[in-house]
Amino acid sequence: MKLLKDKVMAEGIVLGDQVLKVDSFLNHQMDPNLMKEIGREFVQRFEGQKITKILTIESSGIAPAIMTALELNVPMIFARKNKSLTLKNDIFVEKVYSFTKRETNEITVSKKFMHSNDNVLIIDDFLANGEAAFGLARIVQQSGANVVGIGIVIEKSFQPGAKLLQEAGFKLESLVKIASLENNTVTFVEE
Amino acid sequence: MKLLKDKVMAEGIVLGDQVLKVDSFLNHQMDPNLMKEIGREFVQRFEGQKITKILTIESSGIAPAIMTALELNVPMIFARKNKSLTLKNDIFVEKVYSFTKRETNEITVSKKFMHSNDNVLIIDDFLANGEAAFGLARIVQQSGANVVGIGIVIEKSFQPGAKLLQEAGFKLESLVKIASLENNTVTFVEE
Repeated sequence: MKLLKDKVMAEGIVLGDQVLKVDSFLNHQMDPNLMKEIGREFVQRFEGQKITKILTIESSGIAPAIMTALELNVPMIFARKNKSLTLKNDIFVEKVYSFTKRETNEITVSKKFMHSNDNVLIIDDFLANGEAAFGLARIVQQSGANVVGIGIVIEKSFQPGAKLLQEAGFKLESLVKIASLENNTVTFVEE
Repeated sequence: MKLLKDKVMAEGIVLGDQVLKVDSFLNHQMDPNLMKEIGREFVQRFEGQKITKILTIESSGIAPAIMTALELNVPMIFARKNKSLTLKNDIFVEKVYSFTKRETNEITVSKKFMHSNDNVLIIDDFLANGEAAFGLARIVQQSGANVVGIGIVIEKSFQPGAKLLQEAGFKLESLVKIASLENNTVTFVEE
């Protein structure tokens, strides 16, 4: 997605070999028109899939997910992150480890909003190790619903998440794929 | 806002005298078309104010805020919530107490994204005691920017936040005002 690549080149800040900071348009300040275009692009990439729900995780996934939901005219659900919970019967729970924060969170979705006849598109801002995406997919699977695919705004292709998700059989669409952040430079995957 | 009142009546769940659960369209599952209409309504209510930025707080404020930002074609910033931080020079920090969660969080906004020439509209999903709204307003004031006003999706008018914000001189626009949740019933403020 050229618009997004241009934005990464213009405003992305490389912090070491692993971290790309994009807090001017995606993770803290957000560009609403870019979010709208991202939503449209996801809808194109998953065209013809009869999506009934969008699922993301708080917080940075919410804006791209709501724009995708708007374009498709379907509900969006954001999974909540919690340190730990007393077990409840009315929620789906999965554990997700964050390598960045070095902590495990429980992510939850209410059973009221996901059912076995749903076709769910998972959306998230970043893909690195794939922990969040796998956690969201396991929640969809718990509900008996179908994972239509996984849409990612920025994939760090040099980390294992993308390969692992594809090996697990998920249709993965990443709008921007980053091959490397070495030498303080963003190098995109050639396509 | 009639559309929102209807949604509250149809799907809101009263949990005791203080808590209205609206997780089917605002706090967990979200209705994207309703979010779009909410964005339009906020823009109408603050018409002519030369808004340059929308400010909200993660997580449930993000969807209404990004739709408002889209309608106005201005950036949206969501303040981040943290348990506590080592002091940094490049962020504005304010403490916000949550009565619901009985904990104090630090909310932060990067100094890069808010400046003294900004006219900032604050958006949030709920107004109860006003802690979050006041915290966001103090962050805007720290930056030297102007608080254009505060837009709230659901105001619980029987709690002190609305009165306190108006007494402090803020222009407050709440799309739905709830007078009481007593007797397991939603009673709106008559307008």
